[in-house]
Amino acid sequence: MANLDFLFNPKSVALIGASADTKKYGGWTAKNMVDHGYTGDLYFVTRSKNEYIFGVKTYPTILDIPDPVELALVAVPIPYCCETIEQCGKKGVKAAIIVTTGFGEAGEEGQEIERQVVAMARKYNVRLMGPNCMGHYSADMKLTTSIIELEPGPISLVLQSGNLAIDLNNESKKRNLGYSKWATIGNQKDLRFHEFVEHIRDDEATKVLMLYMEGLRIESAEDGRNFMEKAKSTVVKKPVCALKIGHSQAGARAAASHTGSLAANDAVFDAALKQCGVIRIRESQDFLNVAEAFANCPLPKGNRIAIMTDGGGHGVMATDASEQAQLEVPVLSDTTRAELATVLPSYCPMKNPVDLAGPERDLWGFDHVTRMLLEDPDIDGLVIVGLLGGYADLSEEFAELEMAVSRSMVERIKKSGKPVTMHSIYRNANPDCLKIFRENGIPVYQSVESAVMAMGKLYQYSRIKQRLAEAKNAPQIEVPESGAATARKVIEKVRANDRTVVLEHEARDLLAAYGFNQPLYRMAPSADDAVAAWREIGEPVAMKIVSPQIIHKSDAGGVKLNLDSQDDIETAFGEIMAAARAYDNGAELTGVLVMPMAPAGLECIIGGICDDTFGPTVMFGLGGIFVEVLKDVSFRVAPINGTEAREMIEEIKGYPILEGTRGQAGGDIEALADTLQRLSVLMATQPDIAEIDLNPVFVHEKGISFVDARIILHQQAQDNEL
Amino acid sequence: MANLDFLFNPKSVALIGASADTKKYGGWTAKNMVDHGYTGDLYFVTRSKNEYIFGVKTYPTILDIPDPVELALVAVPIPYCCETIEQCGKKGVKAAIIVTTGFGEAGEEGQEIERQVVAMARKYNVRLMGPNCMGHYSADMKLTTSIIELEPGPISLVLQSGNLAIDLNNESKKRNLGYSKWATIGNQKDLRFHEFVEHIRDDEATKVLMLYMEGLRIESAEDGRNFMEKAKSTVVKKPVCALKIGHSQAGARAAASHTGSLAANDAVFDAALKQCGVIRIRESQDFLNVAEAFANCPLPKGNRIAIMTDGGGHGVMATDASEQAQLEVPVLSDTTRAELATVLPSYCPMKNPVDLAGPERDLWGFDHVTRMLLEDPDIDGLVIVGLLGGYADLSEEFAELEMAVSRSMVERIKKSGKPVTMHSIYRNANPDCLKIFRENGIPVYQSVESAVMAMGKLYQYSRIKQRLAEAKNAPQIEVPESGAATARKVIEKVRANDRTVVLEHEARDLLAAYGFNQPLYRMAPSADDAVAAWREIGEPVAMKIVSPQIIHKSDAGGVKLNLDSQDDIETAFGEIMAAARAYDNGAELTGVLVMPMAPAGLECIIGGICDDTFGPTVMFGLGGIFVEVLKDVSFRVAPINGTEAREMIEEIKGYPILEGTRGQAGGDIEALADTLQRLSVLMATQPDIAEIDLNPVFVHEKGISFVDARIILHQQAQDNEL
Repeated sequence: MANLDFLFNPKSVALIGASADTKKYGGWTAKNMVDHGYTGDLYFVTRSKNEYIFGVKTYPTILDIPDPVELALVAVPIPYCCETIEQCGKKGVKAAIIVTTGFGEAGEEGQEIERQVVAMARKYNVRLMGPNCMGHYSADMKLTTSIIELEPGPISLVLQSGNLAIDLNNESKKRNLGYSKWATIGNQKDLRFHEFVEHIRDDEATKVLMLYMEGLRIESAEDGRNFMEKAKSTVVKKPVCALKIGHSQAGARAAASHTGSLAANDAVFDAALKQCGVIRIRESQDFLNVAEAFANCPLPKGNRIAIMTDGGGHGVMATDASEQAQLEVPVLSDTTRAELATVLPSYCPMKNPVDLAGPERDLWGFDHVTRMLLEDPDIDGLVIVGLLGGYADLSEEFAELEMAVSRSMVERIKKSGKPVTMHSIYRNANPDCLKIFRENGIPVYQSVESAVMAMGKLYQYSRIKQRLAEAKNAPQIEVPESGAATARKVIEKVRANDRTVVLEHEARDLLAAYGFNQPLYRMAPSADDAVAAWREIGEPVAMKIVSPQIIHKSDAGGVKLNLDSQDDIETAFGEIMAAARAYDNGAELTGVLVMPMAPAGLECIIGGICDDTFGPTVMFGLGGIFVEVLKDVSFRVAPINGTEAREMIEEIKGYPILEGTRGQAGGDIEALADTLQRLSVLMATQPDIAEIDLNPVFVHEKGISFVDARIILHQQAQDNEL
Repeated sequence: MANLDFLFNPKSVALIGASADTKKYGGWTAKNMVDHGYTGDLYFVTRSKNEYIFGVKTYPTILDIPDPVELALVAVPIPYCCETIEQCGKKGVKAAIIVTTGFGEAGEEGQEIERQVVAMARKYNVRLMGPNCMGHYSADMKLTTSIIELEPGPISLVLQSGNLAIDLNNESKKRNLGYSKWATIGNQKDLRFHEFVEHIRDDEATKVLMLYMEGLRIESAEDGRNFMEKAKSTVVKKPVCALKIGHSQAGARAAASHTGSLAANDAVFDAALKQCGVIRIRESQDFLNVAEAFANCPLPKGNRIAIMTDGGGHGVMATDASEQAQLEVPVLSDTTRAELATVLPSYCPMKNPVDLAGPERDLWGFDHVTRMLLEDPDIDGLVIVGLLGGYADLSEEFAELEMAVSRSMVERIKKSGKPVTMHSIYRNANPDCLKIFRENGIPVYQSVESAVMAMGKLYQYSRIKQRLAEAKNAPQIEVPESGAATARKVIEKVRANDRTVVLEHEARDLLAAYGFNQPLYRMAPSADDAVAAWREIGEPVAMKIVSPQIIHKSDAGGVKLNLDSQDDIETAFGEIMAAARAYDNGAELTGVLVMPMAPAGLECIIGGICDDTFGPTVMFGLGGIFVEVLKDVSFRVAPINGTEAREMIEEIKGYPILEGTRGQAGGDIEALADTLQRLSVLMATQPDIAEIDLNPVFVHEKGISFVDARIILHQQAQDNEL
């Protein structure tokens, strides 16, 4: 049961603020609604005297309509919005779309009215889309609440900005792209992205869902995850692509001041999209290119493409672009090369790209080569570029030949079941010929790079589907059953002491509760305890000051290394205490932590932070200069499974170092993955934790050691439910 | 005196292979030449019986033309090309353009004919453009030799591929972009890029030179440098932009098999373009976008832009794109904010981007804000995006208002002298209004990213000009006067021994000759010599085997470190010799190299290689994992000045490590820059050297040490002239 039927499949709709003047918003919309031919019952509400507007009966208020109204479109000036929503409530409408602007996006006064309108809607249980939106569209009901004219088709689109919607629609029209469900959600005060994603997941007519996001509007800790969950369950059924703007720091600030979206950490947003299999689009010009490919093409089984080109230059460009699109341009098999040789002039290089240009070029060659390349079992998709180059023969005979060849190519392509994308240079000279391709599901792009990029996205989605299918069997770590309760007790103790800083031994207790593999560690309040701990450990130890006030232990002279005799330990204890006292006279000195010396290893950093949008996350990076100079870190929203842990490790640029390089042994990646998973479960199940910092972590050939463990709690205790 | 006047300003032109049938290449071209209205004397040569073709008198051969002919366009089938060129030679034509295909690009047979044609042209001193090209265009002579119709304008374009030319021309027409000089140079068998660059440098009508390159055709070692020199002297006068395709490995192979361009190392090509100030374009869709900006806009003085947007989403996107374009979107000054507040509704954020969308939007606001932002002395350029959003008022009054506002904005923009680029979403709805902008030098782009990218390129060129102006004062190292001669003697000694491997002490002698700062080093053929060397050095030493056959000294047990007594030295000498003998019984053991131990430091790698296109180059990178895992290296074509040396050091991602980070001292960047310059002079003046590898190099707080120095000579002695 799809949940937004009141929006996309309402039995009746009332436009409040209808006008007979199409120069006014309420008039333009009224006409557009009528023109689209909405299949349900349509009513217009207007303060004007017209009994009918565009043939639709009008009423002074929604309450005057004799029959029930499921959906209301509110296009009245902002001062009337609140009472209009109240009337909607009284009428029993299920949802209202407010296209009026001047709300939260327009300063404090607007925010106040927005609060009142939202409260009124809640009171009457009316769901809201907007305000400050540009309406929506539903192909199967022939329903629009927008001034935009849309055609039916296999794409669904949800976006925030109305002006971006206009821009995209201009371009969609040029390309004959049509929509199944389409919505501009404006200020997202009630209905938000995740609900649209869920609804469109179950819309059979949608082949691809496109999102244009400035940010998610977050009301509670679940919201980010809710989006991820809905997106993930959609991606299993159809591709979801998102252009997320505000990815630069300055851009994030601009986005925050636009629709009040939070300036989320883009690296976390990126990771979240990756985790739920949403394909991220980086450039606005790629947005419809990708939509067009998914709306039309089958998915490739692998990433091995053939390039057929009319002219060498375009072939080179396509090959260049393949690298970035993570597509392979393999050497063709002997069989295929031999086949090509039967139809191509001997001077043609029987290579990939196959270049058909030249003095003896025969148009049917393109048809033969298309068949041969698509029949090759080692080729997963075909990119055709530069078609048709050379000097154009403008005769009618040639035009007919072109049409015949195109028709034959289209048949071969459809029969092959493999994806084909295309770039053509006679896009202006012979649109009829290209129409044949376009109408038969072969997208024709304006640039070589776009044709290749689109193929790359098709492949990316086929990999995502595979990964999601495998995810069911992804390894999951087991956390001790008592772990959460034990950890909770530690946290309660810290809270009882009115602290947010978790002391290192407490932090290690927390980690231990979740099964982190750690060496022996002992908290020693006195020198005697420290000696006893050293004896128990039975090897050289490190000693570190434990004090709620001392964060930077080394700076305070609070760390002594490599101690291996009673004398050493006793002296060190005294020195540490003295130094700490000298460093901060008021500090409470709880004692020292005694631990075996960590063996050397590759320096890494592991952390957990709470993201404003997605909540608990884990972070991983190679330590030292890699983090500080190269910012080479990866994120995931917690919790993660074993596959995700491995992916976040493999994602960093320095990964080859962990694998082992220059004859150096690598690190214990299994142990790292185990730790990241445990940390993610800890973060996800203990919402009081604001921040965890394991830095440095040494990764050994076998096992890993955390040299330091810092945990900070939120200022306020958090709801323990996620 | 421009050097390609015979091509771009010929007094007379003959088309050989003219036809009355415009479906044939020779007919289409003939008609196009006539239609363009060439201002010189035009002759057609044809085997047909027509006395006149398109009103132009015909002749059976070029030799039958009674008057002199300066330029010939050859459009005859390939079997007739050689004799046609011979006739051109006899006629005394200065240059011939061969549009015929089937030459070198079409296999062995074509290559053979190509060789004959080129030889024939040389014999008669006829310069050749092509073969396998698509003609050229010269606006001031109204001359075309192409089937392509071009309009006059401020852009000049040189490219290899004819099909790419068709593609670009389709797009140019849509945008009304015009050309001054335009040439497709095909197989570049004679006339090549550098000659066109030089000619267009001096063409007053050209505001920007665009190059579309697969590669440079290299005949001698000077050719790559020749291009760089010509490009550099052009960049001082006007921007030069290049799209260089074949930048991926697979793409480079494809390019090599296309026009026979060498698969150059793209990193070196990139460095070469950077050194001569050529702006590199990465995506084909950016090519005309950039050309349009340079053809129209003044240059910004700095990189601080204001963004004016109609709708928040577009503003966010523009801000995102600014980061990548290396533009700043600064906070506006209090003065400007106060000014904005006088014309904008209070809800508008008086921030950068300035967003004018909203319920009280007034069209004149765009005009006021344009003026205010351009008058701000802290703003260097303006990007206008999303214009005009909202729902369009389609009334005639509004259209008139739009036109009036646009006209006023244009005046303000022109008066400001600052660059403005634009993205509009009513590009379909109201082209008249956008025409006002376009016709007045404000480019209107299809995407927000393009508008920002174009502004970024304008700024990039203004920086390049500044850098070139400063380059005159760039520091230059001084090489000892006797250096080259001393080095030559070392190389001759190696050659006399029939070696290409330069032994380490010889390598160090070569470096010493060029003034490299090195510690004492001594070649010791015997243990006694080694002891003497140690005494002379006066501190702990390292000893390394010297043998032409042993490259990997450590593997052969040929390295001993930290020796500081006579006993140690003598024992080490014996052990080294024994180990080397055991490693390779046949190796000639010249002795050991004795040097002081290198102090520890940051590990770097410095190298010199000979690039196929550009000849001697220098390379720099941080050593170890940085080079091996992250490929973090930079290149420059040798020789380089002090500024270039610094730039190549600063360019690597790990540069902050060299500067000093995490409280660690940095390295001696001056000493590094000095070494890179010396190495570049050594590479550039000793063409026998194929490869230099200083690895590892330790960079200290003061000074640097080369732990190892390997030099390899070319197999064959090289011409000593560069």
